[in-house]
Amino acid sequence: MVAVPNIKLNSGYDMPQVGFGLWKVGNDVASDVVYNAIKAGYRLFDGACDYGNEVECGQGVARAIKDGLVKREELFIVSKLWNTFHDGERVVPIVQKQLADWGLEYFDLYLIHFPVALEYVDPSVRYPPGWHYEGDEIRRSKATIQETWTAMESLVEKKLSKSIGISNFQSQLIYDLLRHAKIPPATLQIEHHPFLVQQELLNLAKAEGIAVTAYSSFGPASFLEFNMTHAVELKPLIEDETIKSIAAKHGRDASQVLLRWATQRGLAIIPKSTRPALIASNLASLEFDLSEDEIKTISGFNRGIRFNQPSNYFPTEQLWIFG
Amino acid sequence: MVAVPNIKLNSGYDMPQVGFGLWKVGNDVASDVVYNAIKAGYRLFDGACDYGNEVECGQGVARAIKDGLVKREELFIVSKLWNTFHDGERVVPIVQKQLADWGLEYFDLYLIHFPVALEYVDPSVRYPPGWHYEGDEIRRSKATIQETWTAMESLVEKKLSKSIGISNFQSQLIYDLLRHAKIPPATLQIEHHPFLVQQELLNLAKAEGIAVTAYSSFGPASFLEFNMTHAVELKPLIEDETIKSIAAKHGRDASQVLLRWATQRGLAIIPKSTRPALIASNLASLEFDLSEDEIKTISGFNRGIRFNQPSNYFPTEQLWIFG
Repeated sequence: MVAVPNIKLNSGYDMPQVGFGLWKVGNDVASDVVYNAIKAGYRLFDGACDYGNEVECGQGVARAIKDGLVKREELFIVSKLWNTFHDGERVVPIVQKQLADWGLEYFDLYLIHFPVALEYVDPSVRYPPGWHYEGDEIRRSKATIQETWTAMESLVEKKLSKSIGISNFQSQLIYDLLRHAKIPPATLQIEHHPFLVQQELLNLAKAEGIAVTAYSSFGPASFLEFNMTHAVELKPLIEDETIKSIAAKHGRDASQVLLRWATQRGLAIIPKSTRPALIASNLASLEFDLSEDEIKTISGFNRGIRFNQPSNYFPTEQLWIFG
Repeated sequence: MVAVPNIKLNSGYDMPQVGFGLWKVGNDVASDVVYNAIKAGYRLFDGACDYGNEVECGQGVARAIKDGLVKREELFIVSKLWNTFHDGERVVPIVQKQLADWGLEYFDLYLIHFPVALEYVDPSVRYPPGWHYEGDEIRRSKATIQETWTAMESLVEKKLSKSIGISNFQSQLIYDLLRHAKIPPATLQIEHHPFLVQQELLNLAKAEGIAVTAYSSFGPASFLEFNMTHAVELKPLIEDETIKSIAAKHGRDASQVLLRWATQRGLAIIPKSTRPALIASNLASLEFDLSEDEIKTISGFNRGIRFNQPSNYFPTEQLWIFG
């Protein structure tokens, strides 16, 4: 089995550098996918309220524990606070619901999913609540990031999550958060691939002691199903001749090169696959090293292209959070 | 004299769409420059503590009023809060000092210059205080934007500024500000030129009723004196063949085309010159109209290139505020 290095978080806990992303894992297969990923050696699972599959993912975890594949304390379970639960008093109750869905007593890491505060939607009315209230309508909440983060900090005190962090935050808001935070974010999860290298944001995180997790490591491939023009028009990174020739040189797949580029840059990664061969191959991306020149070549792909901008999914989107 | 249209601010006041920027106007010439600009028809002057020339600019204003060129209430004087005065209790005193420097009783608009909070430096120790404490050292303050903005709001109540706004803020922090603001920002001042079109940020501002002022309308030209590699290497926009041919078609200068492109996009502009011919020509940029196709062509120059990033001036910069 591939040895997965740990990243030491500022909270004192170790986080596996390679984990398994649960975005877009269907409810029908999620339990088996999680179970098989544990079997393949994955210990970190990156979930979220918004992925709508926490019950099934939890079933996979429970079965793996029951079958003796792994103990709870060997796993690192991540979940995220959805936008509609930013009001301070909503945070603890929704985390308790999400923990119940997973069948867990605590998360290892719990993140603010987006720095976007939307009006509360009761889970009995709609769950997961998504972006819109009704139709295209977006209803905002007045909860500031400080209000939400203060509630996030209470999760640590209440032992509902061992570490807390943020996702999709950019530099100005991170600096503002650091001014009021009693507990600094342990991790920052961001879109990161050769078309979106985000070097200055990584520099900031490093200087502030915040570990960074990359999502969408394969770039446009993660967004093809949304029919985004620029995801469809760009040549897939795994078909790029330069990436392929680097892969061939190492006797590896192009996808492994993309993942190794991220981990050698010091990031944690959370690739997803439902195919056993790819699940194994993603983890095995740790088994070879790119040269410094190869890393530089791949970083040179940077074009500042971001796919996970809410306004990319919703033509009528009223929120421009990366503008 | 050129008629300058007003932009109606959400504070209820009118702001001239074309003003005069005071950044990099030398102390030796500032008084005359302001006086002559008033003579040429400028009514808005965009100053800041950090420009280090507020005393001299104020002298130019006083002379123009004394000579009967203009009345105070016909002018629109803008100034900005420097980073070292973000702590809530520092805001009113420094505004009072800046007003005394100008010889004014109120500002028409007062902006947070950067969303960066640095340790207080007493004006008797160093003024303007700049970015660094000593040598390369940056000392941060824990003042949140909410703390600073609450103090900014008190300026309106105390009649020290008629309107308040922000500068160099990006979308995520603007949304967070709007969650706690009792008085929304009247304006957002940002770097804006054909290499940095920032369409989503403009969409956000429009949707939220915030007027936008563009600085550095000529792009790299404003930054050549800092010897920035990418400012020096890029061909100046006013020498670009496409811009020049559009200018020729209208019988105008390339610089006027760049300014008109911004004002037709709905932005206010604050070009600076110390040469009388250019001072007049910048104002006269309002006297012709680009076609929609020409505006689109110029917007197509967008390359997301930002020059006014603190880390561009300071190789040892510890703050990445646009990362």
